[in-house]
Amino acid sequence: MKRETVVNRSNWLDAGTATWPECRDFLAETPAAILPLGATEQHGPHLPQNTDTVLAEALAVEVAKAGSGLVLPAVPVGYSWSWRDYPGTLTFSLDTFRDVVKDLARSTHRAGCRALMTLSGHGANPGPLKMTVRELVDELDLKVLNVFYPGLDELMADAESPQWAPMNFHAEEFETSLMLYLKPERVRMDQAVREYPPRSAEYEMSTLPLGSLSRSGVFGDATVASAEKGERWFHDCVARMARVWTDFLSAPDAG
Amino acid sequence: MKRETVVNRSNWLDAGTATWPECRDFLAETPAAILPLGATEQHGPHLPQNTDTVLAEALAVEVAKAGSGLVLPAVPVGYSWSWRDYPGTLTFSLDTFRDVVKDLARSTHRAGCRALMTLSGHGANPGPLKMTVRELVDELDLKVLNVFYPGLDELMADAESPQWAPMNFHAEEFETSLMLYLKPERVRMDQAVREYPPRSAEYEMSTLPLGSLSRSGVFGDATVASAEKGERWFHDCVARMARVWTDFLSAPDAG
Amino acid sequence: MKRETVVNRSNWLDAGTATWPECRDFLAETPAAILPLGATEQHGPHLPQNTDTVLAEALAVEVAKAGSGLVLPAVPVGYSWSWRDYPGTLTFSLDTFRDVVKDLARSTHRAGCRALMTLSGHGANPGPLKMTVRELVDELDLKVLNVFYPGLDELMADAESPQWAPMNFHAEEFETSLMLYLKPERVRMDQAVREYPPRSAEYEMSTLPLGSLSRSGVFGDATVASAEKGERWFHDCVARMARVWTDFLSAPDAG
Amino acid sequence: MKRETVVNRSNWLDAGTATWPECRDFLAETPAAILPLGATEQHGPHLPQNTDTVLAEALAVEVAKAGSGLVLPAVPVGYSWSWRDYPGTLTFSLDTFRDVVKDLARSTHRAGCRALMTLSGHGANPGPLKMTVRELVDELDLKVLNVFYPGLDELMADAESPQWAPMNFHAEEFETSLMLYLKPERVRMDQAVREYPPRSAEYEMSTLPLGSLSRSGVFGDATVASAEKGERWFHDCVARMARVWTDFLSAPDAG
Amino acid sequence: MKRETVVNRSNWLDAGTATWPECRDFLAETPAAILPLGATEQHGPHLPQNTDTVLAEALAVEVAKAGSGLVLPAVPVGYSWSWRDYPGTLTFSLDTFRDVVKDLARSTHRAGCRALMTLSGHGANPGPLKMTVRELVDELDLKVLNVFYPGLDELMADAESPQWAPMNFHAEEFETSLMLYLKPERVRMDQAVREYPPRSAEYEMSTLPLGSLSRSGVFGDATVASAEKGERWFHDCVARMARVWTDFLSAPDAG
Amino acid sequence: MKRETVVNRSNWLDAGTATWPECRDFLAETPAAILPLGATEQHGPHLPQNTDTVLAEALAVEVAKAGSGLVLPAVPVGYSWSWRDYPGTLTFSLDTFRDVVKDLARSTHRAGCRALMTLSGHGANPGPLKMTVRELVDELDLKVLNVFYPGLDELMADAESPQWAPMNFHAEEFETSLMLYLKPERVRMDQAVREYPPRSAEYEMSTLPLGSLSRSGVFGDATVASAEKGERWFHDCVARMARVWTDFLSAPDAG
Repeated sequence: MKRETVVNRSNWLDAGTATWPECRDFLAETPAAILPLGATEQHGPHLPQNTDTVLAEALAVEVAKAGSGLVLPAVPVGYSWSWRDYPGTLTFSLDTFRDVVKDLARSTHRAGCRALMTLSGHGANPGPLKMTVRELVDELDLKVLNVFYPGLDELMADAESPQWAPMNFHAEEFETSLMLYLKPERVRMDQAVREYPPRSAEYEMSTLPLGSLSRSGVFGDATVASAEKGERWFHDCVARMARVWTDFLSAPDAG
Repeated sequence: MKRETVVNRSNWLDAGTATWPECRDFLAETPAAILPLGATEQHGPHLPQNTDTVLAEALAVEVAKAGSGLVLPAVPVGYSWSWRDYPGTLTFSLDTFRDVVKDLARSTHRAGCRALMTLSGHGANPGPLKMTVRELVDELDLKVLNVFYPGLDELMADAESPQWAPMNFHAEEFETSLMLYLKPERVRMDQAVREYPPRSAEYEMSTLPLGSLSRSGVFGDATVASAEKGERWFHDCVARMARVWTDFLSAPDAG
Repeated sequence: MKRETVVNRSNWLDAGTATWPECRDFLAETPAAILPLGATEQHGPHLPQNTDTVLAEALAVEVAKAGSGLVLPAVPVGYSWSWRDYPGTLTFSLDTFRDVVKDLARSTHRAGCRALMTLSGHGANPGPLKMTVRELVDELDLKVLNVFYPGLDELMADAESPQWAPMNFHAEEFETSLMLYLKPERVRMDQAVREYPPRSAEYEMSTLPLGSLSRSGVFGDATVASAEKGERWFHDCVARMARVWTDFLSAPDAG
Repeated sequence: MKRETVVNRSNWLDAGTATWPECRDFLAETPAAILPLGATEQHGPHLPQNTDTVLAEALAVEVAKAGSGLVLPAVPVGYSWSWRDYPGTLTFSLDTFRDVVKDLARSTHRAGCRALMTLSGHGANPGPLKMTVRELVDELDLKVLNVFYPGLDELMADAESPQWAPMNFHAEEFETSLMLYLKPERVRMDQAVREYPPRSAEYEMSTLPLGSLSRSGVFGDATVASAEKGERWFHDCVARMARVWTDFLSAPDAG
Repeated sequence: MKRETVVNRSNWLDAGTATWPECRDFLAETPAAILPLGATEQHGPHLPQNTDTVLAEALAVEVAKAGSGLVLPAVPVGYSWSWRDYPGTLTFSLDTFRDVVKDLARSTHRAGCRALMTLSGHGANPGPLKMTVRELVDELDLKVLNVFYPGLDELMADAESPQWAPMNFHAEEFETSLMLYLKPERVRMDQAVREYPPRSAEYEMSTLPLGSLSRSGVFGDATVASAEKGERWFHDCVARMARVWTDFLSAPDAG
Repeated sequence: MKRETVVNRSNWLDAGTATWPECRDFLAETPAAILPLGATEQHGPHLPQNTDTVLAEALAVEVAKAGSGLVLPAVPVGYSWSWRDYPGTLTFSLDTFRDVVKDLARSTHRAGCRALMTLSGHGANPGPLKMTVRELVDELDLKVLNVFYPGLDELMADAESPQWAPMNFHAEEFETSLMLYLKPERVRMDQAVREYPPRSAEYEMSTLPLGSLSRSGVFGDATVASAEKGERWFHDCVARMARVWTDFLSAPDAG
């Protein structure tokens, strides 16, 4: 607050490992931040519970490097109501999830930030996020972009196994491949399974938790995952996310 | 939920890197968890903003190893109102902080946990925690212990520099030494300073944020820190925490 | 409460026009209810603002006739944040919307109802509803189904104009046709327009209100609507909704 | 928002059946609105549950015609705690009722409205409303008038049956007569009863729900109702309400 | 909790001046309490701001003596929105007022109390109280009676000055007389005035604060007050209140 | 509000016994107030439950006389979770306590007050207060000082009995002495006891209520109390409190 300025020469900064004068200097030049939103929830018998946090964090850092922004600490818990009966799963209520995101946005906004990207590694976060950020932009002078694997269908055109349902996949070929690339020591491929729980056309309409449909916690085929696919898909995701983020930052009035 | 049980043979488990069947099996045997509570806030010009998170997480793992428990993911943001004007500091409001802790306790309790230790790496968390956990134990069948550096005065008897105020220290000899031991690559000792901001006897009574008292963000003397002290103090802390936790778990009616 | 029972011989009942003894008798035999959720919001220059309410109400009555249930009064306001800058649009906040739905479910549950279908005429209601009903089923012994035009893509295969975006249409061929069938006197076809506002691939990710994209409030082509299509589509919708509702009621453990 | 203005030449408008450009033009000339507040609750064995909604809506339209204003959609549920044990009755909690009214006022205010009349058809709404609108006028630049049958004692001087208690009547001569005039097809006069539940001087002081006092749900004498009285009383009510509304709109500083 | 019981031989007890074993013993025999609800608000130029608190407290003690009950400490602030622009007036919001009453009821209920009388000295408390105690009886096994000068019209038949409006009086003959009897040293009769602010038939319908109608804060005639009338009225009030309270306690199912 | 000003010539005023014009005039000259925060809770077998309220009120009046300020009515209930199982104890939840303090601060601020001292007579109030007033100063243009027996250790150097724990005393020598000085008729010295409940080093960390540790409710030695000590300590406290209050008022930017 009162120290001499040291100009930050990088296009990105990690808010956790940086010092406060570095944050101050960075935001003064680049008033933009990226918030990785993870989860601690069941990911089948072979993936660690923090899979979504690991992915969100790794993607956020690479997107910041490819674009720009202050990377905020990954929130390690999300809105995981669907898995709440799997021992080990942690979940925020809708209200807590909303307040967490708002408080982080408010803190960053107070420090000068004017554009925020939330980057969800967990597929049930975007729903609550959509409503949360509407309340945020009505409160703060802040523009917000919510990103969750943009263009995934296109990107996964070469996957070996089908998605369980449109944009509905969990602990399967895609997530397992990314983890095999990023944290191979955490993946127990000997435990990986293929499970396509029965689905009626109406599953989206009821309050039946997804968790009660699956025996293993897997929705798709984890056995065909590989680190090679993970590497390709990870970098493709980074490129797509960096593009929408850069476009967003440069749009005259995106709101 | 439906898989065959694989008996967990360890006395501790990391809820983030474990799979859900491992969590299930662990809690069935050991219904106890440890929640590290960190912060992302200014720690002077020489320490990273995640200092309190790093410390809480490292301590939690070692305490779990020395005692027992499921280590929950460290919450990387705390109640940091006092530093809210340092760019980079993130803070939860009292209500958000309370809800975060409650939701994590509820999730773990749902999975069978009956004893929880919160382990704060940040000195402003215990105040809100005290009231939070009272509400929790009125709601759940859960006993809770709040730990923040027990016996620190005794432990730091051999420190070279005095505390700024009783149990009031920040980014100084103690915290810097611990970080020099745990994350030396993150400590910029060339930026370390000694600052004892003026304090009147009444500072505790007003709403003047601590942040407005210090120029550097340091309250104490960071220049005399060393990895050696950090190592000694860290393990002494672990031992003290493990002792109160073990005593708490074995007490017949600790509440 | 205390009068002699008059057995209700119908499979459906309108909770508004019925008397309370009729409601009592009906729910004693058929503990199921349908809640139409409408909106009062801009629907272009040619459709009345209550379009979604009219549609939800008409569909609910026909679905109840084709299946069964107590038809609750249509809620005439929804979650219409996106159109909040069009004068005339009324909107509930997320919290108010949630509380309204919860209070109606609680009241009906207190009267004996154990299965509830929400039937949204407004495309922005299902998002908040999904989270709302999860909280409801955790609180009450009630199973809930959320219905919003199931199978619409299939049903509209013979439409003349394309949807603006997947499942994203407003005041266009479909809605206008339904209104031409149900309330022709309220449709000003001389004002009907065709407008396909520009859309980037990212529009779903930002907080840009849809309202700021369109000049007229129409997303699609209203000019090609007809009462004939409206009649066909309306009854097709009723049949599809009645089917999922009947399946839901007869499922052993749909939750 | 962006279309050419078509001057609204009427002194009133229905926000439900109007289009948004009509609302925009109307409010630009007449920044005043009327909000009918109904109920879905027991009205004895002979009146429909939506009696209060039907009355509030019909009165609002006529008052708007006699005075001026944008008629908002009638809220079909009110604060009906007293009847919550009659199957069929729907009730909002105090908080939900308050939030519903506030959100509608906020939406209308955002569109330019500066004067609002709430018109209650249900006798338990005015209590919560009084406190609600105080909070509203502290928040918005809006003046609010709460109307519930002004001058009713005077107006009913020629009734054949006495009120059960001062301003305390339900499903009796007055309400039944109005419904016989407005919706004769919905009134089952063969089921109409006369019931004066016992009342102690203290009934207002306890939390005993009115509902537990009456066998039929009627408080008064429904058997002496007639469409002729209903017609006279309805138009007398409209005249009185229009007068206070017009006075209110023209008062220099009514708040 | 653990001391030997000393049987309380009195029919009433002051929870403030009593010790906790006395409270324990009293409630074990007489599970009934009286909560005086006062205000700190303008009472004209001649009466102290705590007039309503003084009256509620004195009445509560005498009613307890004449009937029975644990007298809780008088709440010195009420719902005084109407006077919020008179410097010196303190007011609770509706929510705070509600929570205060609820927490006191919950505490007393936890100690065994099963019947509660709220005794308001302030005329704007009963409105919020009515809704508050409904929520309370839905939550607790507690019956509640709200008392505010029962039978006042009858009792004041011999007053010299008329009420400003029905049951609407403030700092006038009645309140001033009671204070002249109870706290003569606090009444500045040389400052007492007579003021009948203009009232339209509609004043109850608008949100115009009463406070903006009166110059002095008096609504009625304070100049004709006397200690003699105060004494007679005070004891008459006590007798009426004690009667309804005793009836309430002995009623088999008053709720 | 509209009467001629009568200049208040005193340095303090009691908001309860004063009239509103006196409050108006006082605050116009001295925009400062003192809020005594008491409790109704067990104080052993010999002290009245309102001990903390009596002390806070008496101290507030004397501090106002020695310094300056409008003395607000003492809040007779505090945050007394620890004693909630002693029949007679009343407690506010954290949220209610916070709202009460905020509403009183808001009311006083609306009347012109710009500096507020909270004066707690109860040792569990300062914790919640600290967080409460931070939210207050972020909302209002008000500086706030929280006072709870400053310098007590120094002041009690001549006590005959030790404190149970640092700054942790209840119904013992200190409180009993003060009450013997202020309200001797309320102290039952024949019931006074000496009790030092067992304490482990960890008692502060658990949620074990203090109440479950003590048999009598006393934490210390009440038997050695005397009015003489009470007189000396009371005036010493007043002097210390008046000093910090006066310093606070004159500090240029205390916040």
